[in-house]
Amino acid sequence: MPHAITPVILSGGSGTRLWPLSTDVKPKQFQPLLGQLSMFALTLGRCTGPQFAPPIIVGSARHADLAETELAAAGLSAQAHILEPSARNTAPAIALAALVSAPDALLLVMPSDHAMRDVPAFTAAVERAAPLAQQGWLVTFGITPAYAETGYGYIERGDPLASELFAARRFLEKPERAKAEAMLAQGGFFWNAGIFLFRADAYLAALVEYAPAMLSACEHALTSAERSDGRVLPGADAFAACPSDSIDYAVMEKSNRVALAPVDPGWSDIGSWDALAGLLPTRQDENVVHGNALCHEARGNLVHSDGPRVSLHGVEGLIVVVSGGEVMIVPRGQSQAVKILAGLAKENQN
Amino acid sequence: MPHAITPVILSGGSGTRLWPLSTDVKPKQFQPLLGQLSMFALTLGRCTGPQFAPPIIVGSARHADLAETELAAAGLSAQAHILEPSARNTAPAIALAALVSAPDALLLVMPSDHAMRDVPAFTAAVERAAPLAQQGWLVTFGITPAYAETGYGYIERGDPLASELFAARRFLEKPERAKAEAMLAQGGFFWNAGIFLFRADAYLAALVEYAPAMLSACEHALTSAERSDGRVLPGADAFAACPSDSIDYAVMEKSNRVALAPVDPGWSDIGSWDALAGLLPTRQDENVVHGNALCHEARGNLVHSDGPRVSLHGVEGLIVVVSGGEVMIVPRGQSQAVKILAGLAKENQN
Repeated sequence: MPHAITPVILSGGSGTRLWPLSTDVKPKQFQPLLGQLSMFALTLGRCTGPQFAPPIIVGSARHADLAETELAAAGLSAQAHILEPSARNTAPAIALAALVSAPDALLLVMPSDHAMRDVPAFTAAVERAAPLAQQGWLVTFGITPAYAETGYGYIERGDPLASELFAARRFLEKPERAKAEAMLAQGGFFWNAGIFLFRADAYLAALVEYAPAMLSACEHALTSAERSDGRVLPGADAFAACPSDSIDYAVMEKSNRVALAPVDPGWSDIGSWDALAGLLPTRQDENVVHGNALCHEARGNLVHSDGPRVSLHGVEGLIVVVSGGEVMIVPRGQSQAVKILAGLAKENQN
Repeated sequence: MPHAITPVILSGGSGTRLWPLSTDVKPKQFQPLLGQLSMFALTLGRCTGPQFAPPIIVGSARHADLAETELAAAGLSAQAHILEPSARNTAPAIALAALVSAPDALLLVMPSDHAMRDVPAFTAAVERAAPLAQQGWLVTFGITPAYAETGYGYIERGDPLASELFAARRFLEKPERAKAEAMLAQGGFFWNAGIFLFRADAYLAALVEYAPAMLSACEHALTSAERSDGRVLPGADAFAACPSDSIDYAVMEKSNRVALAPVDPGWSDIGSWDALAGLLPTRQDENVVHGNALCHEARGNLVHSDGPRVSLHGVEGLIVVVSGGEVMIVPRGQSQAVKILAGLAKENQN
């Protein structure tokens, strides 16, 4: 590969869908959801091969120490650790990373809170896509759908560009169930995982065209940035003036140089307790347990406790989370309501 | 009334049916299940009228300070505070109280963990029964059954002895449902609440006849007792040698001088979380809550938390108890299983 790939790890999310475990103090990406390592650490672990340059981290100033502890534990040192003074969604976050990079740097943009079972499959797709990205394509990785998920956006495959690489025909919002089932049956549709590969200058050129105000705000924020020990703190006022938008809306859905790289790396965004339950092993007593749980005539429950023992009798299909002095109970299949509970809990804070 | 009545408050129970709130460290009777006051304090409050002498407390040495704090708060000082070195059920506990009393003292024996909504109705029944007790009858108070409970023993009414007082025909074990329903339909059957009124010498005379080894062991335990500051610590070896039995089995079911005083004081032994749920007010959101609970599309739940907020969505009819670093969840109607969970939890203690 002619150029090393620079991982750009987006870790500014707050992950309220996994409340009460995921909180502002220690959001989802810094939690060890799948075992000993945090999701952030697992993400770092995906880009430690010889083809990768040191990463650029874009996150929140509140979590700077958490991220740097994880970097040190992984034996990595960030090229830049950009600490957003406010949350402006993914397009500006990636703009900051592109602006601090060499114009011809290949940026591999990844959320920091996703699960991937088959990392070699992912790495192979990245290497396969690199030549297209070198040529100026904005490559998005599309996950081969395993079932008719209604919680993800989809990308439709267009004409082939190279082996296992296609033009992206269009981006689709989270579909209704019937639509999701039709796409699954038809084939050629992939989950939008928010993972991208492109040259820094290609992304910035797209911003010039489709989001010039955003680019300009990000440039001003970096002009007025404070820098120390690898940390970059963009100017708060300039960044606050930046339009908030996702890379999908701001760039991907507009550009005609978007490529799709299909991949099936056993991916999940762990977007809910239900999703997490599906990723964890089931105990012999037919419950999924993290922490101390005593289950008597209780099956099909997910129990996640950060300390207190959880004793269950006669209940099935519950999600029980005990974390940081909060106890949350919802039925499996209804974990989308966690966001509502998290919101109510925040209002009722005393 | 010719003689003051001496309350004998039995507080040696461990209340595992309300685990994890009720524990060895602070069992049910010392918990404020119904509001601000503990069940022990509410029991003390039932016998502070002019007709009552200072109480005799029979409890466990482990809870001596708890009991004395409650006594002081109620402005009471015990006639004697008997601290059982081991648990030997009710018959020996009452024997100890009878042995430290004057022979003609009228003893009103009461568990310390029961609820009574209508204390004047109870007090009136006690006063009504006192003359019979003076004459040497062993009076048991029978609760007018409100429904076909299968969790209580029953007492059948026999011939009338005086106004609203009867001979007790027989004691019945906890019945099957059909039997309970038949008794309720037939009438003349009352719940056995474990509340008694008799002269100390009448009870001791019954022990001479029906349980002489028990009486003798209790006498030895008191001969070898340590006494200080109103506390009586019976000799541990002597008391350990005492047969363990309930007053019902040891005396009441055998004696032919047992009277029944029917009473309807809105009584409950709060023998389960289900029973407690029935005694507490229902919140506007249709849940019964003690502590901090956030309920969203969740109805008919009982939540009891000693601190952590409990957030519920989409669940109905659950009992959720958070206490002392334990979380317990069972469906309403199945709270008899709490004893099983408490046992398993004790085994798994680490």
